[in-house]
Amino acid sequence: MGTKVQYLGYTTSSLGSDSFTAINPQDGQTIEGLFVDATSEEINKAVVLAEKAFSVYKKTTNETRTAFLEAIASEIENLGDELINTGMQETALPQARLQGERGRTCGQLRFFASIVKEGSYVDARIDTAMPDRAPIPKPDIRQMSIALGPVAVFGASNFPLAFSVAGGDTASALAAGCPVIFKAHPAHPNTSDLVASAIIKAAQNTGMPDGVFSMVHGRANRVGEELVKHPAVKAVGFTGSFRGGKALFDLANQREEPIPVYAEMGSTNPVFILPGALKDAKGLATGMIGSISLGVGQFCTNPGLSFIPQTEDGKAFIDAITEYVTASDGGTMLTQGIKSAYEAGKANLEVQSGVQSLARSKKPPSSAGVEAQIYQVSTKEFSNNPILAREVFGPSSVIVNYKDKEDILTIARNLDGHLTATVHGTPEDFKEYRELFDILEGKVGRILINGFPTGVEVCHSMVHGGPFPATTASQTTSVGGNAIQRFVRPVSYQNFPDDLLPEQLKNRNSLKIMRLIDGELTRA
Amino acid sequence: MGTKVQYLGYTTSSLGSDSFTAINPQDGQTIEGLFVDATSEEINKAVVLAEKAFSVYKKTTNETRTAFLEAIASEIENLGDELINTGMQETALPQARLQGERGRTCGQLRFFASIVKEGSYVDARIDTAMPDRAPIPKPDIRQMSIALGPVAVFGASNFPLAFSVAGGDTASALAAGCPVIFKAHPAHPNTSDLVASAIIKAAQNTGMPDGVFSMVHGRANRVGEELVKHPAVKAVGFTGSFRGGKALFDLANQREEPIPVYAEMGSTNPVFILPGALKDAKGLATGMIGSISLGVGQFCTNPGLSFIPQTEDGKAFIDAITEYVTASDGGTMLTQGIKSAYEAGKANLEVQSGVQSLARSKKPPSSAGVEAQIYQVSTKEFSNNPILAREVFGPSSVIVNYKDKEDILTIARNLDGHLTATVHGTPEDFKEYRELFDILEGKVGRILINGFPTGVEVCHSMVHGGPFPATTASQTTSVGGNAIQRFVRPVSYQNFPDDLLPEQLKNRNSLKIMRLIDGELTRA
Repeated sequence: MGTKVQYLGYTTSSLGSDSFTAINPQDGQTIEGLFVDATSEEINKAVVLAEKAFSVYKKTTNETRTAFLEAIASEIENLGDELINTGMQETALPQARLQGERGRTCGQLRFFASIVKEGSYVDARIDTAMPDRAPIPKPDIRQMSIALGPVAVFGASNFPLAFSVAGGDTASALAAGCPVIFKAHPAHPNTSDLVASAIIKAAQNTGMPDGVFSMVHGRANRVGEELVKHPAVKAVGFTGSFRGGKALFDLANQREEPIPVYAEMGSTNPVFILPGALKDAKGLATGMIGSISLGVGQFCTNPGLSFIPQTEDGKAFIDAITEYVTASDGGTMLTQGIKSAYEAGKANLEVQSGVQSLARSKKPPSSAGVEAQIYQVSTKEFSNNPILAREVFGPSSVIVNYKDKEDILTIARNLDGHLTATVHGTPEDFKEYRELFDILEGKVGRILINGFPTGVEVCHSMVHGGPFPATTASQTTSVGGNAIQRFVRPVSYQNFPDDLLPEQLKNRNSLKIMRLIDGELTRA
Repeated sequence: MGTKVQYLGYTTSSLGSDSFTAINPQDGQTIEGLFVDATSEEINKAVVLAEKAFSVYKKTTNETRTAFLEAIASEIENLGDELINTGMQETALPQARLQGERGRTCGQLRFFASIVKEGSYVDARIDTAMPDRAPIPKPDIRQMSIALGPVAVFGASNFPLAFSVAGGDTASALAAGCPVIFKAHPAHPNTSDLVASAIIKAAQNTGMPDGVFSMVHGRANRVGEELVKHPAVKAVGFTGSFRGGKALFDLANQREEPIPVYAEMGSTNPVFILPGALKDAKGLATGMIGSISLGVGQFCTNPGLSFIPQTEDGKAFIDAITEYVTASDGGTMLTQGIKSAYEAGKANLEVQSGVQSLARSKKPPSSAGVEAQIYQVSTKEFSNNPILAREVFGPSSVIVNYKDKEDILTIARNLDGHLTATVHGTPEDFKEYRELFDILEGKVGRILINGFPTGVEVCHSMVHGGPFPATTASQTTSVGGNAIQRFVRPVSYQNFPDDLLPEQLKNRNSLKIMRLIDGELTRA
């Protein structure tokens, strides 16, 4: 069993001694490939290289960074079936899902490449001088966003490609001009190793500076902590649990120089089923079950909470859900640890006052196999017990029966921050429940109508974020075009001669980007 | 001596018992008007009112908020000479300065009004549906920024109008649609009282909801702490000392729901004088002294640190500075406390190894009168002692003599975060020292060439911010058009029927704002 390496820029290293392997969640067996926790020396080397690379990489042209991002996508595609097969072995996710996720990952890299190529994301602004203004002359002032510095990115377990090594955080940080030091998730180290090697290849082929990308492994918290505490790291991207994200957030704020932590920590993604939506109770139940069990419930946007009216139609919906879940097969989770956490979360729900188990699926015989499960609780019990609104990561969901509009509005007002909220209904329902939307706007990053929250489209207008505790940075998104804004900051240039200005701010606008000139948006 | 009140929305209140008065810094005498620290009950009432007001205020049209901001400017102007006279009495700032500052304050309110009126600041984005896309249809997704919630704003001592009650933080938060609870600075409570009454009048006259603005007084830290800890407060604006800003930042991060703190905490604003700039050593020295002593050195952008070459010209510059300072009168600081801190800061400088006093001005006989003072130190001593780079708030400045380019680049690389950096030189100097600009970009919010940092223009492209410890939020600015972005967050609307969408996202674009539609910026 060969020992795998840390990628410290273009050098590989293997100094540590605390080793681990991936485990196949289907059969519980060890997967070939011995991984080692990065040593303090290795972590420091990766960050120091990133800091050095930054001084070169931040000055690369948009074209150069575009070529790099596109090359990463191509190199990931060049990994071919080996990537998919390795991912399947490490995560128990099916082939079609991983192929789709690869498409999403490469599409996302090309999407950020297109944003960099277009170039207007730097928010260039020019206020021209008024030398004759009284009582004091107005100087020429120009502003644009520049790259923040080296970024530490933590991979998520549940999307071994799209939210991992070359996922959205890495893609948007590299797009912004920031080197990335990636902390691989120990649940899929072989998959991570393949993708890291693809990024390194792309970086070398497109002439990027040594250190623009590094990847370290680690099962111990120490590895991530040392990364976040390193003075040269200027921001952190994270997707994972509340406990993990909040710990990194606290650590970053306790540094001598606090740095931003963009932690997406999941949520229960409430679904409000208004009375009129239940005309087709069975169809809606099918969609709902599909969303709850997608990826064995291992989506940050998994609908873990739904509100159903106490009507005949509501009962029909619940009956349909019960029937479908009972007949379904369950699934295999990503790791033994995630399975244990899921089972502990369910056990904790089951001892809460008023919680009824409605339906339980079969359970596959695999090592990390679990059953899907639906619970039911009254509005009153729900309102009195915040535990019922907390995420249980996996294919379980809590149904709350509501009596009337006031019930729904009260529940909405008391919600914590979530990534999404969904409302199902007819145009008449929406008129009647208009206030619900006003309330939800203040609680989530994305509101959906008559859909399911589990698809997170990579596009300019996506917000994958939301108020705490869904994230530690409600004013940002970790998916979509604006994700790049997390890794830049604005700088003003006052009274600069044209030749000293960055290309984006020179008079001629050779990049033809949109700029705010004396208050007017123009490409002139 | 009448007792002054807290403004809790449209109600006034005076429940507390810990009273204080303003002190005239010229004669040390008590100024009429008894102020009382707000009680916990009063603070809570202000925030609860703000939370209630928020549900109405966030839904106001751009026109309505524009009218409100413009009305505030008019009501401040309507205060007439009383405002200027009160300000002079409380701050010892001269009439012309306060008149100018009033102009800046009202201009700033109207500037944000114009940004709201234009409307594009919400960054509207539309990705249209592709129902036939394979393998899964693309939904219609739209995004815009919405108001964050009630904001607590802390006034600065040094700009009793422009960075106080109706200053940039208040103006930008109100512009964004956020109610403001203002914590008045105890150095100018009567000035604050007048401005608060003007805001309240403007709010009532333009039909704003009760609670859109409140102002509480307090000398005790408790008042500010209770504000920041209140669960309904969603962001904090602050201008002041490092100690104060960092304390609020830590407090906000320790909340159950952490919230952003936008603290601008000042800096020493290094000035690099390159050799060619010294052709006119006397002219440059005059400009420099003007900037150092402007407002008795009580500017966040006061140049507290400059780097001068060890040349004949450099000596001439230092001689000129020495001559001007020695002949000058000193000034009266804002408060006794600020004077004491200034004198302690100078005393601390004077005991540092290698620090020489170059020149000291006269000292006015006023109660809070101080002398301006210039110190000199070698590059070596400077590099070994971080204390020499720290801000001493007031009209003092440290001159560091450098030998060569390598000296300058090394010093620049080791700088902490600052609000500004300034470079004086000729086109030849800039070619020779090109790397200096690359380094400074990473250290400050604004770089100036051949100017002085003390003027902070209110315009679209101003960045009044910078890396920690200059601020707690290097990705934002507290002056200029982008200041509004601190108080909004993005929300996605997926699959919404047109009539349920906010006006900015409806198909027809009745506001004619710039929107990113399927990746194209357009007003269509």
